[in-house]
Amino acid sequence: MRHSPPRGTGAAVTSPRAVTHPAREEIRLEEVLHALADPVRLHVVRQLAAEGTEMNCSCIDLPVTKSTSTHHFRVLRESGVIRQTYRGTAKMNALRRDALESLFPGLLDAVLSAAGHQAARDAAHR
Amino acid sequence: MRHSPPRGTGAAVTSPRAVTHPAREEIRLEEVLHALADPVRLHVVRQLAAEGTEMNCSCIDLPVTKSTSTHHFRVLRESGVIRQTYRGTAKMNALRRDALESLFPGLLDAVLSAAGHQAARDAAHR
Repeated sequence: MRHSPPRGTGAAVTSPRAVTHPAREEIRLEEVLHALADPVRLHVVRQLAAEGTEMNCSCIDLPVTKSTSTHHFRVLRESGVIRQTYRGTAKMNALRRDALESLFPGLLDAVLSAAGHQAARDAAHR
Repeated sequence: MRHSPPRGTGAAVTSPRAVTHPAREEIRLEEVLHALADPVRLHVVRQLAAEGTEMNCSCIDLPVTKSTSTHHFRVLRESGVIRQTYRGTAKMNALRRDALESLFPGLLDAVLSAAGHQAARDAAHR
């Protein structure tokens, strides 16, 4: 019984695992740029953009420890760049494309394009 | 005599006040985004973009101490976002628009536009 959610109240939709996100109007440009100003986080964002759908954290291969990875995903979530949702035991991540596009038109695509240009240059010089 | 620059050598163009800048191909997206991810630095970049020409540090009014201001200009210079040049005793600052545009097409304008949108929203809610 103690695992049953309370019925007939708003609390039924929350859980100890609920994660918080900034509302669209709380998203700040400086925090979005800070979130994107890290090679690991930029890699995550490029993967989510390429996939175009939500992805499990464990599907995104990162050269860092689990706790560092969790930190990077939190920075992305708290800045408003991604939305994290639990599906059963899996934490799923999705870009908040619509929110970012309505606040800062063209910004995400410009950063993704810049990251693509840089990756191509790096590959050419390797 | 000791103040005369040596003649006929490359040393004549350098001075103790010369400042170093990353070459265009050394500019990294992550460092540019980090440089822009600060409200004071973003303010400087918006002013330089609006002015469209080089500006003396002292012409850009910032709500920070002189040493903090110097730090912010250094971050902008070392990331490749601005070029700093001495003209007599004045340190002049200019956006490295061409370098940024050739490396990351559209990025600077997308950030400037996003900053404009955010400033307009902030003003509307004040």
